[in-house]
Amino acid sequence: MPFITVKVLEGKTKEQKRAMVEKMTKVVTETLDVDESRVFIFIEDLEKENYGKQGRLFSDLDD
Amino acid sequence: MPFITVKVLEGKTKEQKRAMVEKMTKVVTETLDVDESRVFIFIEDLEKENYGKQGRLFSDLDD
Amino acid sequence: MPFITVKVLEGKTKEQKRAMVEKMTKVVTETLDVDESRVFIFIEDLEKENYGKQGRLFSDLDD
Amino acid sequence: MPFITVKVLEGKTKEQKRAMVEKMTKVVTETLDVDESRVFIFIEDLEKENYGKQGRLFSDLDD
Amino acid sequence: MPFITVKVLEGKTKEQKRAMVEKMTKVVTETLDVDESRVFIFIEDLEKENYGKQGRLFSDLDD
Amino acid sequence: MPFITVKVLEGKTKEQKRAMVEKMTKVVTETLDVDESRVFIFIEDLEKENYGKQGRLFSDLDD
Repeated sequence: MPFITVKVLEGKTKEQKRAMVEKMTKVVTETLDVDESRVFIFIEDLEKENYGKQGRLFSDLDD
Repeated sequence: MPFITVKVLEGKTKEQKRAMVEKMTKVVTETLDVDESRVFIFIEDLEKENYGKQGRLFSDLDD
Repeated sequence: MPFITVKVLEGKTKEQKRAMVEKMTKVVTETLDVDESRVFIFIEDLEKENYGKQGRLFSDLDD
Repeated sequence: MPFITVKVLEGKTKEQKRAMVEKMTKVVTETLDVDESRVFIFIEDLEKENYGKQGRLFSDLDD
Repeated sequence: MPFITVKVLEGKTKEQKRAMVEKMTKVVTETLDVDESRVFIFIEDLEKENYGKQGRLFSDLDD
Repeated sequence: MPFITVKVLEGKTKEQKRAMVEKMTKVVTETLDVDESRVFIFIEDLEKENYGKQGRLFSDLDD
């Protein structure tokens, strides 16, 4: 029943995503008292050109 | 006025999306009593590597 | 697998929401070729004070 | 940098939310290699009348 | 055509929201070269109990 | 603290996005009385094939 969206800067590896999904599901299952089969996680890769903070594009902050 | 987001696993064809948009707009128009011109639909293609359920990445469940 | 969010102006009745969920699920099932048990719909009631269009709050446009 | 949204059925206690935020932050910090100060979590309480599955409102499935 | 969602901590006044909608619409109109009539803004009030940062609920950080 | 998502039709240039992020941050800072360092903006490029209005895909309306 929990539907979780994780917006994260592009570049994370499949191994990182796999570990995150596994452990996050466990955390949610335990703390919210829901069954593992009901936990859905969506990952959204955030491009540096599409992310702004402090008034600047992240791709510019990189420089 | 209804703004609808449809998150769906990648791989749907343009024909499927076209049919869904047409019929979903009709359903919303009729049940919520709004004008067709006010129905906006956004489709988000969900990559298998970015979708987790039951603690595993969908791209792993595929195997 | 489709996860659908419907943002709509507050004030819709439970009967309207019930009918929309029923018919929208059918449409998605048919056009995207997914099983009914995998269709999840979330309704978000939009308050007039929290909705802006054409540069004005909708609660002001009402007047 | 990860921005996490957790949509969950209404009725979770503050203690459950507190524990989830604490442990989820830890998981994300470790698996995605980001600093704790950059993890933001948003919880969205889902009303039973605004959640549909299998073509029916959850508030109807309750009965 | 731009659809903008602003998630902000609860407690902003109607006057603040009104000013934000007016000026944000102008900014988007000018920088993205779209017509004012096509700018939609949604405000989401974030409750302190539903917002976590640095591993803690914001309502706890308040103390 | 404001977290802003801007869904816009694909094709905007980096210069347009840069200007929007800069000016939108200023507007939010002034009208909502928050510090610039706390304004986060996410841009989502909307593909024409994934955007429906008036019951039709935008990529079809183009013709």
